[in-house]
Amino acid sequence: MNLNYDNISFMNKLTELSNKINQRLLSYISIEEVPEKTVIEAMKYSVEAGGKRIRPVLSLAVCEMLNGSESDVIPYACALEMIHTYSLIHDDLPAMDNDDYRRGRLTSHKVFGEAIAILAGDALLNKAYEIMLEDISNTGDMEKVMAKVRATAIVAEAAGSKGMIAGQVVDMESEEKHIDIDTLRYMHKCKTGALIKASILLSTELLNADAFVKEKLTIYSERIGLAFQIKDDILDVESSLEELGKPTGSDENNKKATYVTIYGLEEAKKLLNKVTEDAIDSLEAVEGSYRNTDFLKQVALFICNRRK
Amino acid sequence: MNLNYDNISFMNKLTELSNKINQRLLSYISIEEVPEKTVIEAMKYSVEAGGKRIRPVLSLAVCEMLNGSESDVIPYACALEMIHTYSLIHDDLPAMDNDDYRRGRLTSHKVFGEAIAILAGDALLNKAYEIMLEDISNTGDMEKVMAKVRATAIVAEAAGSKGMIAGQVVDMESEEKHIDIDTLRYMHKCKTGALIKASILLSTELLNADAFVKEKLTIYSERIGLAFQIKDDILDVESSLEELGKPTGSDENNKKATYVTIYGLEEAKKLLNKVTEDAIDSLEAVEGSYRNTDFLKQVALFICNRRK
Repeated sequence: MNLNYDNISFMNKLTELSNKINQRLLSYISIEEVPEKTVIEAMKYSVEAGGKRIRPVLSLAVCEMLNGSESDVIPYACALEMIHTYSLIHDDLPAMDNDDYRRGRLTSHKVFGEAIAILAGDALLNKAYEIMLEDISNTGDMEKVMAKVRATAIVAEAAGSKGMIAGQVVDMESEEKHIDIDTLRYMHKCKTGALIKASILLSTELLNADAFVKEKLTIYSERIGLAFQIKDDILDVESSLEELGKPTGSDENNKKATYVTIYGLEEAKKLLNKVTEDAIDSLEAVEGSYRNTDFLKQVALFICNRRK
Repeated sequence: MNLNYDNISFMNKLTELSNKINQRLLSYISIEEVPEKTVIEAMKYSVEAGGKRIRPVLSLAVCEMLNGSESDVIPYACALEMIHTYSLIHDDLPAMDNDDYRRGRLTSHKVFGEAIAILAGDALLNKAYEIMLEDISNTGDMEKVMAKVRATAIVAEAAGSKGMIAGQVVDMESEEKHIDIDTLRYMHKCKTGALIKASILLSTELLNADAFVKEKLTIYSERIGLAFQIKDDILDVESSLEELGKPTGSDENNKKATYVTIYGLEEAKKLLNKVTEDAIDSLEAVEGSYRNTDFLKQVALFICNRRK
């Protein structure tokens, strides 16, 4: 990408926002001396494993761009991250991708065993709803209640059998067989795209953004979701275990259809640049004196340029 | 139990209510020609597998007892049944109980493979929230909205890491080791009790029952939940694969602590009768000219006397 950005101030802001998310996330999971302690420890282990927190950071960034109140958004941002985390735990299971490492650490089932890993995933998915429902229950203003209900419904739809789970199913069933580009796109739109889109739309819903802003941010969310996946496929070829924190080359080993295996590495990189530019164009349509889109633009560039 | 009841009219009513539930449940899962079709089929397969629908039937029965409107309750009753169904799919997995049969049919992973079974379970849990949130979104009256939010929160808490999942964890970790009666009680209170209790309390919440009714129905729900589990343990010893639709003697084979292995068969039966009587006593405290508790009493007797 030609667009330059201030890497240090961006990374500082990213760290600031992801620290807020980490702090709040961990506040939802407290280890007590209860008979079911193991599953709570497993939930905590995977939530702590961290990563970039790109989804909840996007929720907070949209909130800031729309001059909203962070306290309205953060429970939903954290709930979404818990859903993302549960999906990783289940994805890593022997019956699914059978991965031993995730984010540089042993996967949940390698540490706690398969049964606890399954239950910890279930518990995190459920916890996401517990958190959102508790926040709604504690809200007095009825307009806010309805906005929060709609935000929770957006999250639920994105996480469900027509969203993320559809993507996981198509991904799994596509292994070792030729799939066309439409199926690949559908798979990614669901598997990674749905939650990224929801992370942005939950904030526009909570903060009552107007239709034009919603439309442009929808496009932005779809483009960065796509960029995220293309970049993942590129990293699987170009990165290393050390840098990525998980084994590389696994797509090729699993004979998976990816943007790289279908388009080739160079075309995949061109496509990545194109969708990143589209994402930034979409932000430029909504920016103005009261709306600073710099950070969101930098997120798009970060996704495009990241090394892991 | 000494209390007699009209078996035929009870079974007719039970069938009437469970048919309503079945019809509504299946309306939520439609098989379309989508790339993720397999997981939808797996969701439908397990939801169709049926069983007694005791939890959602209880929700409808409490609704009727409180002269409430069925349409207010049925989405939540179905959501709860989906959560129950997902927990069975995951419980049956090789890494958990490793059961090949459930309700007389092959378990999900035996038909669809482990990966789809895991995802179908995830999808059903998530679908439960999609259903409840859609119902809340379509509600105009704000008092009703808040009652529905509270009912959804009751379901979420019951299904979560301090409810049903806690029970599953303790159950699993108790295998092949000696556990005391307090741990056994805690496990059952969570594993089976939490959802049964929630099936009743979601209706009292949705229909704004008064504190006295809530208290008595809470006791009723706790007692029948306990009765349900004791009876399960007795059936595992006394029933057959043919009658029960799943292998018997599995508790003993797995060296599980149960009411039968801890108390012995005769004492377990006495305890079952005692808690059933307590449940019925609790109903008698709230019945009156506007409140007919006959069916709920018969449910308690049915749980106590069932053959499968």
